[in-house]
Amino acid sequence: MITCKAAVAEEAKKELVVKEVTVGPPQAGEVRVKILYTGVCHTDEYTRSGLDPEGLFPSILGHEGAGIVESIGEGVTSLEVGDHVVPLYIPQCRDCEFCNSSKTNLCGKIRSTQGIGVMPDGTPRFKDKDGNELYHFMGTSTFCQYTVCPEISLAKVNKEAPLDKICLLGCGITTGYGAVINTLKIEEGSTVAVIGLGGVGLAAIMGAHKSKASKIIAVDINPGKFERAILFGATDTLNPLEQKGKEMSELIFEMTDGVGVDYSIECVGTPHLMKQSFLSTKPNGGASCVIGVAAAGQTIDLSSEEVMGREWTGSAFGGTKSRDQVPELVDDYMKGDIKVDEFITHNFPLDDINDAFHAMHEGKCIRAIVKMFDDE
Amino acid sequence: MITCKAAVAEEAKKELVVKEVTVGPPQAGEVRVKILYTGVCHTDEYTRSGLDPEGLFPSILGHEGAGIVESIGEGVTSLEVGDHVVPLYIPQCRDCEFCNSSKTNLCGKIRSTQGIGVMPDGTPRFKDKDGNELYHFMGTSTFCQYTVCPEISLAKVNKEAPLDKICLLGCGITTGYGAVINTLKIEEGSTVAVIGLGGVGLAAIMGAHKSKASKIIAVDINPGKFERAILFGATDTLNPLEQKGKEMSELIFEMTDGVGVDYSIECVGTPHLMKQSFLSTKPNGGASCVIGVAAAGQTIDLSSEEVMGREWTGSAFGGTKSRDQVPELVDDYMKGDIKVDEFITHNFPLDDINDAFHAMHEGKCIRAIVKMFDDE
Repeated sequence: MITCKAAVAEEAKKELVVKEVTVGPPQAGEVRVKILYTGVCHTDEYTRSGLDPEGLFPSILGHEGAGIVESIGEGVTSLEVGDHVVPLYIPQCRDCEFCNSSKTNLCGKIRSTQGIGVMPDGTPRFKDKDGNELYHFMGTSTFCQYTVCPEISLAKVNKEAPLDKICLLGCGITTGYGAVINTLKIEEGSTVAVIGLGGVGLAAIMGAHKSKASKIIAVDINPGKFERAILFGATDTLNPLEQKGKEMSELIFEMTDGVGVDYSIECVGTPHLMKQSFLSTKPNGGASCVIGVAAAGQTIDLSSEEVMGREWTGSAFGGTKSRDQVPELVDDYMKGDIKVDEFITHNFPLDDINDAFHAMHEGKCIRAIVKMFDDE
Repeated sequence: MITCKAAVAEEAKKELVVKEVTVGPPQAGEVRVKILYTGVCHTDEYTRSGLDPEGLFPSILGHEGAGIVESIGEGVTSLEVGDHVVPLYIPQCRDCEFCNSSKTNLCGKIRSTQGIGVMPDGTPRFKDKDGNELYHFMGTSTFCQYTVCPEISLAKVNKEAPLDKICLLGCGITTGYGAVINTLKIEEGSTVAVIGLGGVGLAAIMGAHKSKASKIIAVDINPGKFERAILFGATDTLNPLEQKGKEMSELIFEMTDGVGVDYSIECVGTPHLMKQSFLSTKPNGGASCVIGVAAAGQTIDLSSEEVMGREWTGSAFGGTKSRDQVPELVDDYMKGDIKVDEFITHNFPLDDINDAFHAMHEGKCIRAIVKMFDDE
């Protein structure tokens, strides 16, 4: 049993509380990881804020981390103590029907227990100092100095890679980049609109640029985000608020000689924008991807005529086969093939983790990195 | 100018009136075709019934025909008098951006004039005996003994093929078969649900069977349609009305060990069924195609969570590159590779064309063929 610090989400809507917790030893098929750095993502905030109807409290949030294997449970064969790892909220068992399918990255193996905040055996590893159990979150709980994950929820990565950077490959960057590379598979010369220029949107732009898109329209209502979008490869920018009375899709049609874009990617999570993003694509052969998750109960309405010549799809974690592809992305980063450092705008110590949430709301933050230990 | 018989849609909701009309000579880039046989399709009925808000009257409906080139206009090079042709409501100019794209079959060349019931020069070729102009329909107007089509709206087919059969390749069969082959591109071993067992649905089943799907669930609320579905290759049948209180998607999950189907195809045109069809697919990698067109103004509402691991797409004319692929389908039929005769349940002379519409409503008709001339 390890005693360490964690940022605990005690109740919905409340700030996280940094306090001592205990972390039980890894059971069969599990691994205990010392988390050195973690990003803070909108999905953490979605649960913290109480909007997520499936949110569980008290719990330890966090799903964009990186660390080092501290100990392994019985039967663990793919990892050993000292390995560098990125926790994965979408596992890859390499055994189930879905892992064996080229059409999805959504492993079905531990979905049911992950969704209810426990390890595959049905129990959590976290307790507070009074012995009360704390829920896990997304199978990762990276807001704790030590976490326990199923073996299939950890990507073993290059030990040379800086953990304070590659933690971002555990969610945001991989999600946006992968949506373009794995889900939409956009071709050279394509025209692309990316809606929302947070970390995910910038990563989508990076993917479109990498795929040699001929036109990449970066869309946001905060023009302060355009400079960075251009750094990542955007060729055009659009602030829909600047042209009152016109919908975003109309403006994108105007920017593409009236034909629409080949591909659009929604990285915000608003049903109206999801629909506008869809309608921004070519009625003849366009494809649109939803990355953002709309609030529970909100839906997008489309007519059969609108969908007739188009394709609409969703993407979770960028369609990335997590244990296989996250290590490859780390290597791509080390070779200079993808940007990671450029996403990081803020750094905080664990004690100030709530400031990372505040920064996210202020619109100037792309990604904030939280350092889990003061002395390392 | 040719004087001949046509079934004229004089007003919305009224029965067609078989009467004399005149058909002007083909202008530049146009071809006049003697129509020998035509099918009657739900899209004709959709317009006749007045539900189509873009329906134009008086007009000559019909878009599932076959005939012989009677004369050609200036500049026509790909067809000559005597060629056997199938009129195409989706043309293929082989020149526009969309014809050059592998991702769509929706040629953009003459869309605007076709949609307003005239030839590309902005005028119609049809007049009634009082000299009043009649609108074209879908660029085909096969309910007339002679019709005029743009050259790019005609597929030249094998002269050996029986026109009273292959007229069906001008819409229904190609639409359902192509949705599976061209749009969804289903793989061997896939599981498939086909919703609605009219001509389009049966053709989709034929496509799934041809693609060696391992399970083909044929769904209809009219159990009288199951026998024919099995003839076309269905392995399982489902009448959702037989199990009250459960949605179709739940029943399909039960029939697939709780995982859903790889592919679903909606061939009815009801928003509720489109959504249920979508939700019948695997949340991990499923894909659903809409073929039916819902009534104007009706929409399908989906949540971002439902679409996250799935793909939703539409298909018009089965994603078929019309001038290239319809002749291939005719050849496939001649070789016995696809069924056509088995879709035909009724035959009528032109004078009784309204009975073909009645038969369609009775639920026992798959496809009715109308013979345009008594003596040939």
